[in-house]
Amino acid sequence: MATATEADAMRRAIALAARGLGSTSPNPVVGCVVLDPQGRPLGEGWHRRAGGPHAEVEALRAAAGAGHDVRGGTAVVTLEPCNHTGRTGPCAQALIDAGIARVVYAVADPNPVATGGAATLAAAGVDTEGGLLADEAAAGNAAWLTSVLHHRPFVAWKYAATLDGRSAAADGTSRWITSAESRADVHRLRAEADAVVVGSGTLHADDPHLAVRGRPDATQPLRVVVDTRAGVKPGARVLDEAARTLVAVAEDADTRHLAGLGTVEVVRLPRAAGGPGLDVTTLLAALHERGVCSVLLEGGPTLAGSFLAAGAVDRVVGYLAPALLGAGPTALGDAGIGTIAQALRLDVTDVARLGPDLRITATPIAPATVPATEES
Amino acid sequence: MATATEADAMRRAIALAARGLGSTSPNPVVGCVVLDPQGRPLGEGWHRRAGGPHAEVEALRAAAGAGHDVRGGTAVVTLEPCNHTGRTGPCAQALIDAGIARVVYAVADPNPVATGGAATLAAAGVDTEGGLLADEAAAGNAAWLTSVLHHRPFVAWKYAATLDGRSAAADGTSRWITSAESRADVHRLRAEADAVVVGSGTLHADDPHLAVRGRPDATQPLRVVVDTRAGVKPGARVLDEAARTLVAVAEDADTRHLAGLGTVEVVRLPRAAGGPGLDVTTLLAALHERGVCSVLLEGGPTLAGSFLAAGAVDRVVGYLAPALLGAGPTALGDAGIGTIAQALRLDVTDVARLGPDLRITATPIAPATVPATEES
Repeated sequence: MATATEADAMRRAIALAARGLGSTSPNPVVGCVVLDPQGRPLGEGWHRRAGGPHAEVEALRAAAGAGHDVRGGTAVVTLEPCNHTGRTGPCAQALIDAGIARVVYAVADPNPVATGGAATLAAAGVDTEGGLLADEAAAGNAAWLTSVLHHRPFVAWKYAATLDGRSAAADGTSRWITSAESRADVHRLRAEADAVVVGSGTLHADDPHLAVRGRPDATQPLRVVVDTRAGVKPGARVLDEAARTLVAVAEDADTRHLAGLGTVEVVRLPRAAGGPGLDVTTLLAALHERGVCSVLLEGGPTLAGSFLAAGAVDRVVGYLAPALLGAGPTALGDAGIGTIAQALRLDVTDVARLGPDLRITATPIAPATVPATEES
Repeated sequence: MATATEADAMRRAIALAARGLGSTSPNPVVGCVVLDPQGRPLGEGWHRRAGGPHAEVEALRAAAGAGHDVRGGTAVVTLEPCNHTGRTGPCAQALIDAGIARVVYAVADPNPVATGGAATLAAAGVDTEGGLLADEAAAGNAAWLTSVLHHRPFVAWKYAATLDGRSAAADGTSRWITSAESRADVHRLRAEADAVVVGSGTLHADDPHLAVRGRPDATQPLRVVVDTRAGVKPGARVLDEAARTLVAVAEDADTRHLAGLGTVEVVRLPRAAGGPGLDVTTLLAALHERGVCSVLLEGGPTLAGSFLAAGAVDRVVGYLAPALLGAGPTALGDAGIGTIAQALRLDVTDVARLGPDLRITATPIAPATVPATEES
């Protein structure tokens, strides 16, 4: 049974893990705190980027660097220590070699390649316990777990709108509906994602850049343009060299104007059955193949509707500006919902104030059956 | 200088005053707490309904009923005690006659008929102080103050919508977008308002009843239907005898089918300049003439747009359901806003969770100049 001190250390490890969001794919984010036998912290670390040291190794090094002896101590780690040698050695063996006496982890590793660490530790006589704060740790690793378990990226749909649901005014102007605080927060979301996705409507209306700004340490996400007819122009800002760009087009699109752009890859995908755009499931598979674990879907309304209709949105992040427009494009277009009973119901997990705005974070839930007998 | 005890008593008095919302028009809501010279409460009261005793008299009676001697005590009251004899005698004189030594009030009475109470009290040797928690008390009396100062009712626009701003699905179904908790809260808003206003679109789509349910002590608001062509049918639920109803029609509308309905009044108003509906300012003047201090505007989108375009919305109360529709009518229609710089900006004053929903309360502010130099 884990102690309260170990639970506190796990909360710290979960916070450390989150620092790696956006930089570790296709690896998970992981945090680790090493405690001495009395529960005092000796060292901590997190997995910073794919190819770099794992969290356990970082924490062991930090402890050693501070002159601490970790023998007999406890490693508290957000994910079951890995058991395989990839670009780095197996963490289970590193913990054994360091003389760690006890390992407490949150989430069991579902990755068939890396699993087995707990058994290795136990076989070496290390007291091993899993499941501590597993839900919190799993939420922090939602992208990687979605990727491993469902073989597609985790998708967060971000939108910005007025209280009446408009993402632009009647004349198409939209700068700025939301506040500087909200826009800075969107750059955080981009930095934490492996890919940022927009449709051709947004591309042509806004000429967005889609790179992360204001966060010098951020790994730039892959910029993805869903551009069925390959209408993107060579001068578009999204095609510059600030980050890599993937242009997803229909199989018959003419892409000669995109040849020779060094940071741009073109992928050809089938069209959606019965729709004008590309097939969302195939698009996500193409991103999964490229090691993308998390997608920030930035719009516009048509693409968001396609993703929602495909059941491919795992989280909704709405930035609501306290403003009214009464006309103009709506934040969400057709998602195949015809009647109130088909409404996509969400569970609000967080409400935050960002300057004057509200940020609402929500997760889709199964449609509830709503009684319709009451009067208005 | 008021004491901390008097400030606490004023907070209590403001809370007491709010119990009268919806029942006191054309009078204000007022609360009063009487303290002994040591600051101990002796009695409290509030103005319950027009024609009934004022708050000060209620508080004096409560103290007397409990066997307390109020001589030498302090009356803490949310509004300057009145100085005139209406349906009841002047409160200033009642406080003097009771031997009250000190009066602390929040808001000076702007009503030319009733003002002068503080001067009367001071002339009688009562220690009199105004302005304690004046902003809070004024906020609680916003409807009455708007009525007295601007000669029109205070207007709160209430809407219910999904996160993407839809008030119904593509097929028109809307029961229920929001939760039972939100709908009960709307009945509270109705109970606190003097009138509930809907347009003919909502009338024909929803056949709403608009009376307060679930609050047995509530004074039913006047139900107001903005029905330019007098299309309301005699069997409509809004025309039943649960409450009075005012049907606002154009000057040339045929209203013969509405004759003989005992609880229904017809008012003829000019059409809006350049619009299909009725002139909002004239409508509000007609309600003001009828003693309506506060209006709950319930929709639909066209009428809400007209009110907003007329600058006639003082508060916005949005019930946002965590749901997405992607199609269907929007909560707000054309409000004469063509570009982002004209967006009606609001200040969010409260965010509450009601069951799964969010209730956002906001107040219109002057349009801010937003810089447009940043990149996306």
